[in-house]
Amino acid sequence: MNYLGKHISGQFDAELAHIRTQVMVMGGLVESQLANAISTVSNHDQELANKVLASDQEVNQMEVKIDEACVRIIAKRQPTASDLRLIIVIIKTIAELERIGDSAKDICQVALQNFPEEHKSILAGLDTMGNHVVQMLHDVLDAFTRMDLNEAIRVYKEDKRIGQNYEAMIRQLMTFMMENPRSIPNIISVLNCTRSILRISSRCQNICEFIFYFIKGQDFRHVGDDVIEALIADNKV
Amino acid sequence: MNYLGKHISGQFDAELAHIRTQVMVMGGLVESQLANAISTVSNHDQELANKVLASDQEVNQMEVKIDEACVRIIAKRQPTASDLRLIIVIIKTIAELERIGDSAKDICQVALQNFPEEHKSILAGLDTMGNHVVQMLHDVLDAFTRMDLNEAIRVYKEDKRIGQNYEAMIRQLMTFMMENPRSIPNIISVLNCTRSILRISSRCQNICEFIFYFIKGQDFRHVGDDVIEALIADNKV
Repeated sequence: MNYLGKHISGQFDAELAHIRTQVMVMGGLVESQLANAISTVSNHDQELANKVLASDQEVNQMEVKIDEACVRIIAKRQPTASDLRLIIVIIKTIAELERIGDSAKDICQVALQNFPEEHKSILAGLDTMGNHVVQMLHDVLDAFTRMDLNEAIRVYKEDKRIGQNYEAMIRQLMTFMMENPRSIPNIISVLNCTRSILRISSRCQNICEFIFYFIKGQDFRHVGDDVIEALIADNKV
Repeated sequence: MNYLGKHISGQFDAELAHIRTQVMVMGGLVESQLANAISTVSNHDQELANKVLASDQEVNQMEVKIDEACVRIIAKRQPTASDLRLIIVIIKTIAELERIGDSAKDICQVALQNFPEEHKSILAGLDTMGNHVVQMLHDVLDAFTRMDLNEAIRVYKEDKRIGQNYEAMIRQLMTFMMENPRSIPNIISVLNCTRSILRISSRCQNICEFIFYFIKGQDFRHVGDDVIEALIADNKV
């Protein structure tokens, strides 16, 4: 089902399409920022880490530009119903994307630290969780592009698995610190990284909720698992 | 200087005023949630902690209600210029407030843990930083109510001091863990708490930026310290 209709005003359509394209470009940029950030950590690639840090400015500027375009289109076109919802959802989504970019930057800080060889094994553990969340971001952007409810529901449910990864990772890091107290400063950075990845997962989940809102015209934040389960059941994912 | 003008439509004025009042109520609720959360940690008050956890639902519902009212007023009144900016700023501000509420909840989780007597001293250290951020939230809500640029600039600058508190706190926690490896699981919670407080500070700073945007009609996010310094110099704070 195609939730993105057409307008009598071709110009309005063109403006909306342009904004949506910009969101996709921004999303693509943040996705590669995040994928690079994750790979810098396990590969200890300081050059790539610096590249990620440098690209943040571009993401920030895109957020401001898209935000301005959204406010301008509301003032000029006075959209209602699903058009207005789409613009509100874009404003909220780009804020999440910008902060995912910030988290990618935080993750890179770990790559820029000097880890003694014997502590590096612990970094590998971040890889699984990190790649999972890269995939999650990729899929939610895909769901957003197509405004695909089923895909958004599928991504939404991934957050639970990331949460389980997180718990396992924290237990592992605690044990490592208790056995190697001198590793504590290093492991604290890894711990911060793990939390950043968890937070990115919940930001992806937020974007899923925006997609639900756009399609269903109803706010699905804070609704409780039963309402989400009903949404899932209705859509037989 | 009063940045909040009057409209020809008295009804529109009344609707906007009603939304702003609701934001203040929500802000007040989050402020007391946060103040309670901070006090539960040092006083180890589990009853109060449970009360904070329970009040989160109310904050969430307020966010959804205000959000709906904002979208409705855009669709119905088709605001432009500063009216539109105000509504956009409200949508973004309540999202920050809701997440400050979430952080308050996270902070309470520490109060619900069993800390051995000899580790409790470390909790007191959270107090200074915590109360600082409670004050920051109080002041930014005050600046928001009056759309007071000078006050918003003053609060904006507080984030730097919170950052310094954070660094000092982390160093202290690391030393404590290295000296008492068995304390690690407890201290990790305190560490998470400290990060939550830091994040609340940057959310308060975000709200300051929204106030700048409303008043100046220009986006002050990601602009660099020089532009903020110029804003400060212009306003002689």
